[in-house]
Amino acid sequence: MAELTGPVHVVGAGLLGTSIGMALTGAGIPVWLSDMNHEHVRTASGLGAGAPTPAGGVAQLVVVAVPPDHIADAVVEALDSGAVVTDVGSVKGRPLAEITDRVGESRLANYVGSHPMAGSERSGPLAASAAMFDGRPWAITPHVHAAPEAVALVEELARLCRAEPVRLSPVEHDRSVARTSHLPHLLAVLAASQLAEALPEQLLLTGQGVRDVTRVAAGDPDLYGQIIRANREAVAELLADVRRDLDRVIEAMAESGEEEATEALGLILARGVAGTRAIPGKHGGPSLDTAAVFVAVPDTPGELARLLSDVGEIGVNIEDLHIDHDPARPVGHVELAVGAAAAEDLREALEARNWTTHR
Amino acid sequence: MAELTGPVHVVGAGLLGTSIGMALTGAGIPVWLSDMNHEHVRTASGLGAGAPTPAGGVAQLVVVAVPPDHIADAVVEALDSGAVVTDVGSVKGRPLAEITDRVGESRLANYVGSHPMAGSERSGPLAASAAMFDGRPWAITPHVHAAPEAVALVEELARLCRAEPVRLSPVEHDRSVARTSHLPHLLAVLAASQLAEALPEQLLLTGQGVRDVTRVAAGDPDLYGQIIRANREAVAELLADVRRDLDRVIEAMAESGEEEATEALGLILARGVAGTRAIPGKHGGPSLDTAAVFVAVPDTPGELARLLSDVGEIGVNIEDLHIDHDPARPVGHVELAVGAAAAEDLREALEARNWTTHR
Repeated sequence: MAELTGPVHVVGAGLLGTSIGMALTGAGIPVWLSDMNHEHVRTASGLGAGAPTPAGGVAQLVVVAVPPDHIADAVVEALDSGAVVTDVGSVKGRPLAEITDRVGESRLANYVGSHPMAGSERSGPLAASAAMFDGRPWAITPHVHAAPEAVALVEELARLCRAEPVRLSPVEHDRSVARTSHLPHLLAVLAASQLAEALPEQLLLTGQGVRDVTRVAAGDPDLYGQIIRANREAVAELLADVRRDLDRVIEAMAESGEEEATEALGLILARGVAGTRAIPGKHGGPSLDTAAVFVAVPDTPGELARLLSDVGEIGVNIEDLHIDHDPARPVGHVELAVGAAAAEDLREALEARNWTTHR
Repeated sequence: MAELTGPVHVVGAGLLGTSIGMALTGAGIPVWLSDMNHEHVRTASGLGAGAPTPAGGVAQLVVVAVPPDHIADAVVEALDSGAVVTDVGSVKGRPLAEITDRVGESRLANYVGSHPMAGSERSGPLAASAAMFDGRPWAITPHVHAAPEAVALVEELARLCRAEPVRLSPVEHDRSVARTSHLPHLLAVLAASQLAEALPEQLLLTGQGVRDVTRVAAGDPDLYGQIIRANREAVAELLADVRRDLDRVIEAMAESGEEEATEALGLILARGVAGTRAIPGKHGGPSLDTAAVFVAVPDTPGELARLLSDVGEIGVNIEDLHIDHDPARPVGHVELAVGAAAAEDLREALEARNWTTHR
């Protein structure tokens, strides 16, 4: 069992680095901070993320938390110190190949990549939080030459940040995030792009569906561009699949036989339904069979709280919640997702408390 | 000014028909119900949606609320009675063409199509609600031969159901929903399909983003197949655009020049950002500049209510709310979207009340 006692040197005092520093400091581990931008180090220190790195100090673990294009450089430099080194970049295969080219396999034992599944659309130390990783998965991606003690130490880092380590090979990791993050991001961008082309009056009929589909497309284009390009092999493989699927949809639209078209389209749509069911449920358990209860809620402070307080008193646990924005009136439709078995009782109990509901 | 006094004959006592019957009955308008399934009429009547249609009765307005493939038949039959006729189908051009073929332009004056932007993933009269249309847009889609009094009467129907009528031509309507509903649905299906192909361990790294992107793909494949096929011209046009965009993404992935690739991908991603900003904001106003505040909330009944009660006391209005499902721990991350100017104050005020927040 590896014991992480520190010091931990965090390179890059941005959103993730500062959050890691705050979480480790909270766990009693000494943290050193460095950043090309000295202002960031001062800010992060002020937030309790650690102290500036002392000259000549040797850390037990170096955590590289710099932008994607600078990860390899920072890891290579850190390996010189003899410390165990990890990085927290969103893509693992390409940086590993670059690092291997630079230092050779014999010096790779102390490097173990990782990737916490957490973040924010904001960046910089001011957006950091010690709670950022609470309960989130943190991918640990050892290569074949990694020393077992180094792997264990990086897993310990994840646990001290209160995340749940998930071990995957770099290739598996990159294939996984290509499917669960990079490809959905690109498809959201394609859907959103068509809205950018629309006449304003065509957008009067937008509902909650299109808002959900396109939400992630609002993310920083530079950062996502770097991330997706770094994972281009895995993403390109999926894009080729998607292009075939898209061609099938286009064919089903052009098909003149009504029955054949309906059947072809039905098959495509049914595979989508199967995909939504494959997403793991809350807390990693099997996907829970939920049902939606819609409630009309006046759009004034306190009303949503009153609703949820009533739901709490009724004793039903909310699995998910969406607020549907009304385009024209100060009434919100709140969609409560609850266990399917509880939905009807909840609806009746809410009606009894004078809420207007539908399913 | 057309006055809708009834009787209104609702053909099809499913989710939408029963909801319209309930809303009109609540507004004091006499409603008659009919459905090929007599059980549905009995259920809808029991819910207060109206009375069974009397033999030989002539209605002021007939509302056709049957599945897409049966709309034209039902409208043609209803026009024989001399009443004004509308339908509430999701696509307007194709049924209009079919009806015109069958009855000729001279008899079209009393028909005005419409489309309330409301619904549920459930169907049938038991899922109905008088509140379903509260504040929602309701597209009114007159053709060139429609009588102005007929158009006014259908707008009055929308208002009596507490919806906001939005007037569009049938072609404009179909182009609009192709962009804001049918295309996003298909792209969500393509993203979800790739999850259906994934190994379970690849799905351990799913976050909130992919859940949002794929949510609508869970909808009934038969119903969405009918709807999307009925709008195939408008959808096919957008799909051709999307295919070109997708090819550009694929090219950017294959591009060997790093700078050229980054620039090409950046342009595509930036257009997506512009698309998300084109979506009208809450209550039809301009898109509000919001910022996210993340709060760690124990996953037990009542905690979410306590949080929102605190937010209400602090006096900040919540624009949107998402619950991020933790894959591993009984702590939820709740994302509160609030006006950008209020975010920092809210975070501080919540921290002062012992909530753990980040941005």
